[in-house]
Amino acid sequence: MDWDSGATGQVEQVVVEILEAVRRRGDSAVLEYTARFDRITASCVAELEISPERRATALDRLPSMQREALEFAAERIRAYHQRQKTESWSYTEPDGSILGQQVTPLERVGVYVPGGKAAYPSSVLMNVLPARVAGVDEITMLAPAPGGEINPLVLAAAQIARVDRLFTIGGAQAIGVLAYGSETIAAVDKIVGPGNAYVAEAKRRVFGQVGIDMIAGPSEIMVVCDGQTDPEWIAVDLFAQAEHDEDARAMLVCPDPLYLDQVQSAMERLLPAMERSEIIRAALNSRGALICVRDLAEAADVVNFVAPEHLELSLIEPERMLSAVRHAGAVFLGQNTAEVFGDYCAGPNHVLPTSRTARFASPLGVYDFQKRTSLVRCSGDGAARLGRIAGRLARGEGLTAHARSAEYRVQESDDEQQPPL
Amino acid sequence: MDWDSGATGQVEQVVVEILEAVRRRGDSAVLEYTARFDRITASCVAELEISPERRATALDRLPSMQREALEFAAERIRAYHQRQKTESWSYTEPDGSILGQQVTPLERVGVYVPGGKAAYPSSVLMNVLPARVAGVDEITMLAPAPGGEINPLVLAAAQIARVDRLFTIGGAQAIGVLAYGSETIAAVDKIVGPGNAYVAEAKRRVFGQVGIDMIAGPSEIMVVCDGQTDPEWIAVDLFAQAEHDEDARAMLVCPDPLYLDQVQSAMERLLPAMERSEIIRAALNSRGALICVRDLAEAADVVNFVAPEHLELSLIEPERMLSAVRHAGAVFLGQNTAEVFGDYCAGPNHVLPTSRTARFASPLGVYDFQKRTSLVRCSGDGAARLGRIAGRLARGEGLTAHARSAEYRVQESDDEQQPPL
Repeated sequence: MDWDSGATGQVEQVVVEILEAVRRRGDSAVLEYTARFDRITASCVAELEISPERRATALDRLPSMQREALEFAAERIRAYHQRQKTESWSYTEPDGSILGQQVTPLERVGVYVPGGKAAYPSSVLMNVLPARVAGVDEITMLAPAPGGEINPLVLAAAQIARVDRLFTIGGAQAIGVLAYGSETIAAVDKIVGPGNAYVAEAKRRVFGQVGIDMIAGPSEIMVVCDGQTDPEWIAVDLFAQAEHDEDARAMLVCPDPLYLDQVQSAMERLLPAMERSEIIRAALNSRGALICVRDLAEAADVVNFVAPEHLELSLIEPERMLSAVRHAGAVFLGQNTAEVFGDYCAGPNHVLPTSRTARFASPLGVYDFQKRTSLVRCSGDGAARLGRIAGRLARGEGLTAHARSAEYRVQESDDEQQPPL
Repeated sequence: MDWDSGATGQVEQVVVEILEAVRRRGDSAVLEYTARFDRITASCVAELEISPERRATALDRLPSMQREALEFAAERIRAYHQRQKTESWSYTEPDGSILGQQVTPLERVGVYVPGGKAAYPSSVLMNVLPARVAGVDEITMLAPAPGGEINPLVLAAAQIARVDRLFTIGGAQAIGVLAYGSETIAAVDKIVGPGNAYVAEAKRRVFGQVGIDMIAGPSEIMVVCDGQTDPEWIAVDLFAQAEHDEDARAMLVCPDPLYLDQVQSAMERLLPAMERSEIIRAALNSRGALICVRDLAEAADVVNFVAPEHLELSLIEPERMLSAVRHAGAVFLGQNTAEVFGDYCAGPNHVLPTSRTARFASPLGVYDFQKRTSLVRCSGDGAARLGRIAGRLARGEGLTAHARSAEYRVQESDDEQQPPL
């Protein structure tokens, strides 16, 4: 079940060198690496910026079916994520002291969007919109444009999601310039978005300097079926996961061995017609599974052990099982609810915890772009009360300057009155 | 401003070896390292467990002043953290589809508590209570007991915070056994708590396998004062931070140069009387600062650049400045509100983002022990609508198995009726 996401020594060495160069030389290092890896020659980083006008043009030129679909998806994602917003709160104690938690958006966020094969407009929406809903001041998106080419759907999605700035910069140099800043690009506070091994290693290394999202492992689905769904539907649901890449993991859990056979037959029948059949076959052969369980209670045990990124409960009564599900990134309930809806337009985020991390991690959300600050405002009485207690506890820990600092506030208040403990 | 928290090569090598041994050999490796590093010879790990009875005895034997203070602190911490609990939510769309977010506590959490010099009962309360409030099933606390000795205040705090299991195991071997589990100790889902360089490096390495909290840098305070507070109070507030260790950072920001001189004089006058004067002097000499600003607006700029872990607004009108504060771990408002209250008993957590990470990170809280799962349940109409859109978007991304999976749900519903997009 382990997924070794550690970078190889060669990747590490290249990334260290690139990050160090970008940190020391800023724009000029970015230009060099962009010329070398993406074959774009620019005289300054400003030339790599894609203006809002160009993004607007890309959106205008989309076929209306595509544009409508992207805008529909964006609207649903926005509506769902609005509910995730955390609000500030405070309360006043009987002695007049005030305690609270101030919730504020991050100031600057960088969103990385991979280029080439994996240039997904859905990824732009899923990473940018939660930051936008959180109220982030400035969102800078970086995406490589190998040979100068960039997917117009990606530009259109950036326009719909209203990124503030967009540059065609990719790889470890993109992560470096977001983390450290340069003459042209301001350093950000957090970097999110998927990428290849170089991008992942660079994110790992700048973590601490800036925040990062989780480093994702391969995508996974676990389908639990009671044997009542058309086997072809389930076969294609598994294919949809497997077509991502050879490491994707598609698993079906069912108490009915005959149904598992039917799904297997459906897969064999349908596979040749799939455009990405080679990838699907490789993924299913190396990491797929059809798992026969005694009953749905045992299915829940399997689910909770695997803590799948995506869980499809293709059951007549999915709600009955939901209460037994403890660990999953996202759950899709009922035969009608294809997992792929969640990849695009159901509303929830498609950036989800993989490789069993749903035991402790959550989908990307608005909360990832907000932070909290604790607030304490003591009344005179409150300070005297806390001062006595803090003084005792500090002396118990041998921290006497702490105790003195606390006790000053007791004396002060005692001049006025002597509140009970 | 950078704090290089990277482990040295020597530390890394030792930690890799210990983690690997614990992963492969479980209990027996734990016993070996505990004998070697903590000089405790036990024939089995069960002998290292401290029973609830022993913890209860430790609590009963405390002087009543200490016990009262710990219980008072625990009660305030619990009350504050209760407000942080995130609740599940869901909503129904006009077509009958249901979207939601299920919030559940983590199942098992490990809390590390350092031994020796840094054995702080307050740290037990601050790390355990948020997990308890979140509803975590099982909390396992590990703390080294060099030579068999453990601070009775730490045992008492563990009893007050109601940890489920407590073992005297420390160092990288403690982190290893929490992450991987052994014959006697169940693997946890997340590890929190401070520790030395070996513990920090071990946490860094097991991250992914389990969740971890932030790896903290040295503690910091920034005091902003309008020159109206007794200079001795401010001097001792700075000492309280500096006495933690030689790397602690204490900074005062004020628009009045004469007041800064008064604080400096107070520090020189009071320092010799402090029990930890050597540490305080070292910290202040290498990392302390008295910063003269033009006005409080400029003070806010300094605050936001530094993003201090602790911010004390020792001002007559602290609320006026609060709205300009963007980045801080915790804010203490007004002359009466000593930062040290927050270390012990004000209510908010004392585990806070350091080294400028308050730009993107939050205090440890109940939210760190809860996780979210997205829920989607489509009605027939909802599925048909989403299926059309998802199909289009999937084809735009060249993922045709995704498109097929989506489109199955459109046909199904179309048999019944044809809902508008």
